Amino acid sequence: MARQRIAIIGAGPSGIAALRAFESAERAGEEIPEVVAYEKQDDWGGQWNYDWRSGIDQYGEPVHSSMYRNLWSNGPKEALEFAEYTFDEHFGRPISSYPPREVLWDYIDGRVRTTNVKDKVRFSTAVRWVEHHEDRDIFTVTVEDLKNHRTTSSEFDRVIVATGHFSFPHVPEFQGIETFPGTLHHAHDFRGAEKLADQRVLLIGASYSAEDIGVQAFKMGARSVTMSYRSGPMGYDWPEGMEELPLLERFEGTTAHFSNGETREFDAVILCTGYLHKYPFLPSNLALQSGNNIYPAGLYRGVVWQGNPKVYYLGAQDQWFTFNMFDAQAWYVRDLIMGRAELPTAAERAEHLQDWHRRFQGVGGDADAVRFQAEYIRDLIEATDYPMFDLDEVVRIFLAWKDDKKKNILTYRDKPYRSVMTGSLAAEHHTTWLQELDDSLERYLST
Amino acid sequence: MARQRIAIIGAGPSGIAALRAFESAERAGEEIPEVVAYEKQDDWGGQWNYDWRSGIDQYGEPVHSSMYRNLWSNGPKEALEFAEYTFDEHFGRPISSYPPREVLWDYIDGRVRTTNVKDKVRFSTAVRWVEHHEDRDIFTVTVEDLKNHRTTSSEFDRVIVATGHFSFPHVPEFQGIETFPGTLHHAHDFRGAEKLADQRVLLIGASYSAEDIGVQAFKMGARSVTMSYRSGPMGYDWPEGMEELPLLERFEGTTAHFSNGETREFDAVILCTGYLHKYPFLPSNLALQSGNNIYPAGLYRGVVWQGNPKVYYLGAQDQWFTFNMFDAQAWYVRDLIMGRAELPTAAERAEHLQDWHRRFQGVGGDADAVRFQAEYIRDLIEATDYPMFDLDEVVRIFLAWKDDKKKNILTYRDKPYRSVMTGSLAAEHHTTWLQELDDSLERYLST
Ligand SMILES: Cc1cc2nc3c(=O)[nH]c(=O)nc-3n(C[C@H](O)[C@H](O)[C@H](O)COP(=O)(O)OP(=O)(O)OC[C@H]3O[C@@H](n4cnc5c(N)ncnc54)[C@H](O)[C@@H]3O)c2cc1C
Ligand SMILES: Cc1cc2nc3c(=O)[nH]c(=O)nc-3n(C[C@H](O)[C@H](O)[C@H](O)COP(=O)(O)OP(=O)(O)OC[C@H]3O[C@@H](n4cnc5c(N)ncnc54)[C@H](O)[C@@H]3O)c2cc1C
Ligand SMILES: NC(=O)c1ccc[n+]([C@@H]2O[C@H](COP(=O)([O-])OP(=O)(O)OC[C@H]3O[C@@H](n4cnc5c(N)ncnc54)[C@H](OP(=O)(O)O)[C@@H]3O)[C@@H](O)[C@H]2O)c1
Ligand SMILES: NC(=O)c1ccc[n+]([C@@H]2O[C@H](COP(=O)([O-])OP(=O)(O)OC[C@H]3O[C@@H](n4cnc5c(N)ncnc54)[C@H](OP(=O)(O)O)[C@@H]3O)[C@@H](O)[C@H]2O)c1
Repeated sequence: MARQRIAIIGAGPSGIAALRAFESAERAGEEIPEVVAYEKQDDWGGQWNYDWRSGIDQYGEPVHSSMYRNLWSNGPKEALEFAEYTFDEHFGRPISSYPPREVLWDYIDGRVRTTNVKDKVRFSTAVRWVEHHEDRDIFTVTVEDLKNHRTTSSEFDRVIVATGHFSFPHVPEFQGIETFPGTLHHAHDFRGAEKLADQRVLLIGASYSAEDIGVQAFKMGARSVTMSYRSGPMGYDWPEGMEELPLLERFEGTTAHFSNGETREFDAVILCTGYLHKYPFLPSNLALQSGNNIYPAGLYRGVVWQGNPKVYYLGAQDQWFTFNMFDAQAWYVRDLIMGRAELPTAAERAEHLQDWHRRFQGVGGDADAVRFQAEYIRDLIEATDYPMFDLDEVVRIFLAWKDDKKKNILTYRDKPYRSVMTGSLAAEHHTTWLQELDDSLERYLST
Repeated sequence: MARQRIAIIGAGPSGIAALRAFESAERAGEEIPEVVAYEKQDDWGGQWNYDWRSGIDQYGEPVHSSMYRNLWSNGPKEALEFAEYTFDEHFGRPISSYPPREVLWDYIDGRVRTTNVKDKVRFSTAVRWVEHHEDRDIFTVTVEDLKNHRTTSSEFDRVIVATGHFSFPHVPEFQGIETFPGTLHHAHDFRGAEKLADQRVLLIGASYSAEDIGVQAFKMGARSVTMSYRSGPMGYDWPEGMEELPLLERFEGTTAHFSNGETREFDAVILCTGYLHKYPFLPSNLALQSGNNIYPAGLYRGVVWQGNPKVYYLGAQDQWFTFNMFDAQAWYVRDLIMGRAELPTAAERAEHLQDWHRRFQGVGGDADAVRFQAEYIRDLIEATDYPMFDLDEVVRIFLAWKDDKKKNILTYRDKPYRSVMTGSLAAEHHTTWLQELDDSLERYLST
């Protein structure tokens, strides 16, 4: 049998995990398939590959990253650590639990920097269209080399979709919003809180983006920060100048009317209303359709597309766990592809899917969701040779983190956690998050 | 022979011109091909269909329109008037020469409002991929219905590309720009000048966007407006508070360094650096590659793709003339498709292309370019039954308009011109452009 050809779409943390999974089998002496990863940006790292542009990038493609200059990890790094490449190994000394974006990019990059996997990535290359040919059970992947505008098509036996799902903003309509004359955009296009200094800022949404852009705006001297929720308030003990209000009902110029009858005047509005799962390069029978949740329908074990089990998705879930979950998924998908793990029949998969979907529907509240995701990961790791780690302890870290945030939303990032991989305790950082105005790697690593 | 099937991609002014061209043949009793237009927005009008969103739209697609609330025609309407549907006919009375966006949308829409052509448009439907099958000389057009996420493919004999070329911003790199902390985006994402009140604004570029966003910002009370040119200054007699500087060399935080050694501090930067010709739904052998110029290479008579003469482009040129030029192109393409005009051989087309390309290269300066485009249109109209109009007089209108701008960049929009179609003189508007703060159709038509 000819060597299989595998296309990976996207080289963010998930796509890199897939590359790493194959490389690790190769290092163990196995013959691996021919792997080609397509990445539309000039470098890898996905969301962590910061772009000062917003909207459209230098190639005319939608800007991928939603991250901003001031972004720091919003969960302890001990919850996302790779089981087979630790922070201690990368940095050679303990660092704090909540590093800024550039530091985490360095860590992701560091794991694969010295391997040959970068050669397998076709950078600045956007996947335009994927087609499955029933007759030969093969995929044609059509891509555009963005630097020279050439399109080409190649055939693959399997396709791994690793394009993320926090890049296409969900931008709902609000009555009268077209009359708002101030700064107005989605969190996806937010690049830094400095421009909000002295402004009256409205953030619509009540999740991580609203919370973090809120505290960033506060940190940078916004005159006021109002957060508007639909389902319920975040309920943190906000500092003076920050408040939560129920849903925004309509705008009249600079005036916003809320559902409790209150009104406020604003200079800037940022829609923190989440993202769309969107795969514009896939025909609808291969494209996942899902909201942002921890068990998207139609994915066996969260990764195998039930409609065509030669299509895989990585990182398609809402994310408590991130990097190590992507690893667990990638190792399992690799083993399916290489025949090291067996794919159950369609009927068995459907049953398994139903079973987990039922469990998912029983999940009540965040603590439960974290445990659910931990069990999901355990199930994957058990099927592979990825190093098992203490998932229960990570669950405890997540719960303590939530507690820290409840106690003080402005200081939770200053607390150190202990690595479940190495047992070593994180460093206390030289500067508290609230006082630190320089988010660079250089500054972070300075002592 | 079976009835031909024609796909039109895009229902902006150019796509509507194509629909109208076929409808006009049908009204004259001819049997027309089966025509399907795909339009990714919920309504037609292209650039003139304003979207308050920037970056990404409600379906996760790149926002198409680059227009802003405050946008008014920047050339006299007498230069763009349809030869077969006049402003007098539409509005029933003279209006001024420079109407705001909503008024022009109404005019475009009005021509086809009472026809059946809207039924031929599949709205909220994005073209994803076009493929030409050599063996059967047929095109497969794959589209996504954005409301229900369904992709479908259909076969067509010919494809008309009418997707415009002012929607994918050209966003070049500038040294240090990632350190600029203020408002920063491309003109494509500009939605209104009100937010620039009291700000020190830098516009990079020296063409229509820089000029008009500049005067809009001035009108709305910007503290200062600086425009930075690469090739040469616009050279208008700017009011106090507006200035032109040579090319921006680098940013250091809020400080911009210019190539003449000067520096300035800014609160907001808007890149008015033009747009990319981009056709992400086309394989590279069908995709036009061009800068923004009045005679893009590879298009016979500016419309027939030399690489495959069953592919047509409308409105692919830089635009002095707009609506009536799109009409002339659409009528000619219709006649080619319906066999009413004869397509020369590939060799003859190549020769014609070379000939016009040589003429194009001889064009020196704006007045020459306007004349060139007028001759180009004359050549097209002569080949069709589109009503010929006094192109020489329109050239004179353009030259007078340029003169008006030289005289006073803040008042040129107050001057009335005479229609070459009806001979009637435009109205003097009830309010001067500089004093008018309401850009709505309702206000415009109020007396
Ligand atoms: C604002 C924000 C902050 C976050 N902060 C944290 C945090 O603090 N901690 C944490 O653990 N997680 C965080 N996340 C979660 C983040 O999603 C994950 O950490 C991680 O980046 C997901 O990896 P991924 O590879 O699945 O997707 P992505 O990182 O999104 O990478 C997808 C890659 O696919 C490429 N791609 C997309 N389409 C195409 C195409 N058509 N052709 C070719 N390539 C394509 C993209 O360019 C990109 O490189 C954050 C997310 C957001 C949006
Ligand atoms: C800021 C700005 C101001 C302007 N002001 C003036 C002015 O004052 N006067 C003037 O005469 N001209 C002006 N123009 C020029 C303008 O380009 C033309 O007036 C006209 O809109 C061009 O028509 P079009 O149909 O060729 O392209 P567009 O108007 O761009 O329309 C293209 C259409 O194609 C659709 N489309 C794109 N991709 C897809 C896809 N993949 N699938 C389905 N549909 C798709 C879009 O949604 C859009 O509706 C301005 C342009 C800009 C950018
Ligand atoms: N490192 C960091 O500091 C950081 C910062 C930002 C984001 N992130 C990450 O980015 C990812 C995305 O987070 P996110 O907050 O952008 O998205 P999200 O978690 O999906 O939350 C979307 C929010 O938008 C609200 N919403 C949606 N439609 C709405 C409507 N029509 N009206 C009002 N509210 C509406 C939702 O309310 P309902 O609850 O009512 O549905 C929800 O609160 C997460 O993984 C997060 O961890 C990290
Ligand atoms: N109705 C209105 O009021 C209105 C308003 C805005 C726009 N428009 C229309 O919109 C269309 C587009 O106009 P536009 O001005 O956006 O684009 P444009 O006419 O293509 O001009 C692009 C400008 O960007 C400059 N530029 C490109 N790359 C640069 C770089 N790296 N550094 C510095 N400058 C750079 C160009 O300079 P060089 O000359 O050196 O190449 C040029 O000045 C036109 O049809 C126009 O009529 C109309």
